[in-house]
Amino acid sequence: LDYQHVQVPFEITLWIMLASLAKIGFHLYNKLPSIVPESCLLIFVGLIMGGIIYGLNDRSPPVMDSDIFFLYLLPPIVLDAGYFMPSRPFFENIGTILLYAVVGTIWNVFGIGFSLYGICQVKAFRLQDVSLLHNLLFGSLIAAVDPVAVLAVFEEIHVNEKLHILVFGESLLNDAVTVVLYKLFRSFCEMPTIKSVDVFAGVGKFFVVGLGGVLVGLSFGFTAAFTTRFTKDIRVIEPLFVFLYSYLSYLTAEMFHLSGIVAIISCAMGMKRYVEANISLKSHTTVKYFMKMWSSVSDTLIFIFLGVSTIGENHEWNWPYICFTVIFCLIWRALGVLVLTFFVNRFHVNTITSKDQFIIAYGGLRGAICFSLVFLLPDFHRKKLFIAATTVVILFTVFIQGMTIRPLVDLLAVKRKRESAPTVGEQIHIRFLDHLLAGIEDISGHWGQYYWKDKLEYFNSKYLQKILLREYDQPKSSIVLLYEKLERKHAIELAQAGQLGHGPAQPSFLCSAFLCSSSDRTVITDQKLEDTLNPNVLDNMQEILARNLYRIRRTGPAYNRHTLPGESEPTEQAKEILILRHKSL
Amino acid sequence: LDYQHVQVPFEITLWIMLASLAKIGFHLYNKLPSIVPESCLLIFVGLIMGGIIYGLNDRSPPVMDSDIFFLYLLPPIVLDAGYFMPSRPFFENIGTILLYAVVGTIWNVFGIGFSLYGICQVKAFRLQDVSLLHNLLFGSLIAAVDPVAVLAVFEEIHVNEKLHILVFGESLLNDAVTVVLYKLFRSFCEMPTIKSVDVFAGVGKFFVVGLGGVLVGLSFGFTAAFTTRFTKDIRVIEPLFVFLYSYLSYLTAEMFHLSGIVAIISCAMGMKRYVEANISLKSHTTVKYFMKMWSSVSDTLIFIFLGVSTIGENHEWNWPYICFTVIFCLIWRALGVLVLTFFVNRFHVNTITSKDQFIIAYGGLRGAICFSLVFLLPDFHRKKLFIAATTVVILFTVFIQGMTIRPLVDLLAVKRKRESAPTVGEQIHIRFLDHLLAGIEDISGHWGQYYWKDKLEYFNSKYLQKILLREYDQPKSSIVLLYEKLERKHAIELAQAGQLGHGPAQPSFLCSAFLCSSSDRTVITDQKLEDTLNPNVLDNMQEILARNLYRIRRTGPAYNRHTLPGESEPTEQAKEILILRHKSL
Repeated sequence: LDYQHVQVPFEITLWIMLASLAKIGFHLYNKLPSIVPESCLLIFVGLIMGGIIYGLNDRSPPVMDSDIFFLYLLPPIVLDAGYFMPSRPFFENIGTILLYAVVGTIWNVFGIGFSLYGICQVKAFRLQDVSLLHNLLFGSLIAAVDPVAVLAVFEEIHVNEKLHILVFGESLLNDAVTVVLYKLFRSFCEMPTIKSVDVFAGVGKFFVVGLGGVLVGLSFGFTAAFTTRFTKDIRVIEPLFVFLYSYLSYLTAEMFHLSGIVAIISCAMGMKRYVEANISLKSHTTVKYFMKMWSSVSDTLIFIFLGVSTIGENHEWNWPYICFTVIFCLIWRALGVLVLTFFVNRFHVNTITSKDQFIIAYGGLRGAICFSLVFLLPDFHRKKLFIAATTVVILFTVFIQGMTIRPLVDLLAVKRKRESAPTVGEQIHIRFLDHLLAGIEDISGHWGQYYWKDKLEYFNSKYLQKILLREYDQPKSSIVLLYEKLERKHAIELAQAGQLGHGPAQPSFLCSAFLCSSSDRTVITDQKLEDTLNPNVLDNMQEILARNLYRIRRTGPAYNRHTLPGESEPTEQAKEILILRHKSL
Repeated sequence: LDYQHVQVPFEITLWIMLASLAKIGFHLYNKLPSIVPESCLLIFVGLIMGGIIYGLNDRSPPVMDSDIFFLYLLPPIVLDAGYFMPSRPFFENIGTILLYAVVGTIWNVFGIGFSLYGICQVKAFRLQDVSLLHNLLFGSLIAAVDPVAVLAVFEEIHVNEKLHILVFGESLLNDAVTVVLYKLFRSFCEMPTIKSVDVFAGVGKFFVVGLGGVLVGLSFGFTAAFTTRFTKDIRVIEPLFVFLYSYLSYLTAEMFHLSGIVAIISCAMGMKRYVEANISLKSHTTVKYFMKMWSSVSDTLIFIFLGVSTIGENHEWNWPYICFTVIFCLIWRALGVLVLTFFVNRFHVNTITSKDQFIIAYGGLRGAICFSLVFLLPDFHRKKLFIAATTVVILFTVFIQGMTIRPLVDLLAVKRKRESAPTVGEQIHIRFLDHLLAGIEDISGHWGQYYWKDKLEYFNSKYLQKILLREYDQPKSSIVLLYEKLERKHAIELAQAGQLGHGPAQPSFLCSAFLCSSSDRTVITDQKLEDTLNPNVLDNMQEILARNLYRIRRTGPAYNRHTLPGESEPTEQAKEILILRHKSL
């Protein structure tokens, strides 16, 4: 037996296997994941595992290494998030998101830091040795909302798109602020005296870290798109470039102390449309599938490790400090959201309702990023207290808030995400309105959102596409692409039902899709058509229409981490095919 | 700048990126890969890289780590090979393959070892300090044909299936023999005296290492199949299990000193049919694509590292030893193939021709496995000589033999692989003959190949499928699956051509496929049919048939590492779609 030799890959594989099997286990009992979020279950598995390891070895189980977390586990999740980010709602709400992410996070950091410092002044709590700077450092790591935790919970509750993008976008973009504040306070802790120059340099750094991340990401994204122009003869390595360039953008940003999360998101969003046009359909399926798979595994591992790391002797318990941390986290976030939303609502017609505000404040979950940052702190005598407080805040937000947010959403009747994909008719209308508004803004001389979008689109089709796309002379509009996709899907369904070519002539799918998209669903019976066709044919058409309508209702399930869009149930399909085949025989 | 922090993942990503970009570079110039095999080009890139590193640092560039090779680079290639192994030709020729792999390899090891020992006795060569045992040890590592090198060359020359499987199967299965002999001689080298018991134990080990590998592989394969029964609700992590279980089988086998290559191949072949039935179509695409991608990258990295590692000061040059090593490798392999094939041909009706024998002998390429094994040798004063000899043999076989084998195949007019996939008619005939032969063997009491195959199939459908498949009550025959696949493909093509449902009723695709598969291609014109149909409709049908025939001719490109089966040219398709769309308008 030569275990030493294979230890590293063997143990990694086993951990991944455990995570995947745990995931399968939960989904075997359908009721469980619908009550408790998966993240809670996974932390629970981790706690049990940690307990077993602690019991067997009689020493603390290994703590999740911050390097492993930031270099290997976090990038896949953020890449997945960036690549599948719905770009329209994101850019429509970018102002609000940035306000929450930058001003909101700073507000939370200083709010929590100063109030905890106030608590430390109470003599009875015996916390007088924790300085203001240490409290602010702690505030900077505990204030950041965690994208992994938010994603895990919000994907399951299906709130409306705007609410989702507000919370999720904030959790992604606050990384730049957190990185700057955390590093700033940490270096202040080590400095003997702090000059005002250092404080101003810190403020300047916000822009460098954030915009630098965007620049690094976009340059890697465009390079990736340019590279895929030349992969026509070796299709199999196409998916690789998507992963390699995004990962490089993350690592490069981290290397220069910029925001890696912002970089990888810019990279993914920048390359997506060009890469998708260049690579083959199967490569694209692989990219999508593998990204989902990878992020799903990373996410599972993170929560399990979080559970395992909780067990052990790293903690120093101090009731007042820990309780007040939880309370201040809740209060300052709620206050921040209220104040910021008040200003946001003054400038927007489409306001954020008070229900939405409550969910935004309540959805501020903390997760593995805080946990990794607290372990990265320099050693000082109260580090174990900070670790304990962070662990409690994470467990509180993930368990209590994560488990109650779904019933609260039901109770408050928060507007849900629509379950169906937009119809072709809707898409045409949206596009038409975009053009109209861009024209209005152009004429009135108002440089608004639509004006810039139009200019960007012009720049894209005039220069970028020529450089980055292999066949730039065929710019297909998204409507045509959608039509092709629908036709392809329809054809596959027909083939599976054994109807291809056997039955009578059928009306085009697009036609029926349009009929369906008209809201009143009146069947336009052209008099002339009725005259020339006999009743049998008409019945037949009605039947086909009915079937197509049924199909449309079935399409477009709500977005979910565990399924890919457009995936249908094979057992159901198989049954249907069998029945249809029998009938046709 | 914080390079230390991200060094490991950054450098790994950069190496993979370099490898992928080199691959793209070659394929940009279509002429280059058709003359020089890719493996040669990659080694060449590696040599240049190594030269640059050597020139800049003035010390030997890093040598490929044997652990990295055996634990991370080799498994993906072998997994890909095992998963896409054509099982029918493999099992039909399993006897011959095993004979070449076991007896042939032992023949080569002892032949090369003893002849080199003879050379060492010549005083003028100054090699008298190399003992017989060291020569045998060297023989055991240099005798093994390398699957990676064989695959890289044979995939590009498209010889007939039987010839391909003979060389490739041998290169895979000789791993068990190489492992045993190499470890045996290495332990003998360290023993003071060798008892005859040790020799017998060594012989017994062959069976343990080989059969143990098969057992480990099959058990992991069946567990993988069983696991995918329960993944219905979380489709995205399905592909993961295929990779995790195969890798675990490899690591477990290596841990117990069994043959990892044999284990991973058994695992892949064992799980394939069950996993494919359980997982979704998109998961399956991802599995196939990712396997290809991964093996392609590993293979590229191996050849580049091979080039890099060649440069440096690890070599001790001794003309006679190195020249005679190359000569003996060639001679003993040729003799071995001649003698073994003589015996094989006496027991088979379908004999191996002398041309085929020549290609089998000539295709015995050495590669990275030898290279890694020679670096794993315990330190002794002539190790650098062995390294030099191994490097020369590898470069000679990959460059000289690899580059001349294609012209030789052309010159000898070796039977090529047929370019088209077998038609439905052929498949039905093959299956019918299988059943017939199984029946004949059963009646005549002869326990032959078909008898066992039939028994295995019975066992499979009676027990295994019930345990391992999610829907075991619907055992679809491969003919039905093929039909479904063809219909689906046809439907997509119709949808892309914009013909779906618009045109007149079309005859089923299966019908035309059958017409096409009948060898004489007579069009059966039913008298009655002709009476009822007017000439226009008949013309229409003829045209559709003609188009379908064209389509069938286009399917089934020859197997190639760089393409997946059934992938068509998107530009060509796009053009066709445009033309057809214009016409229909």
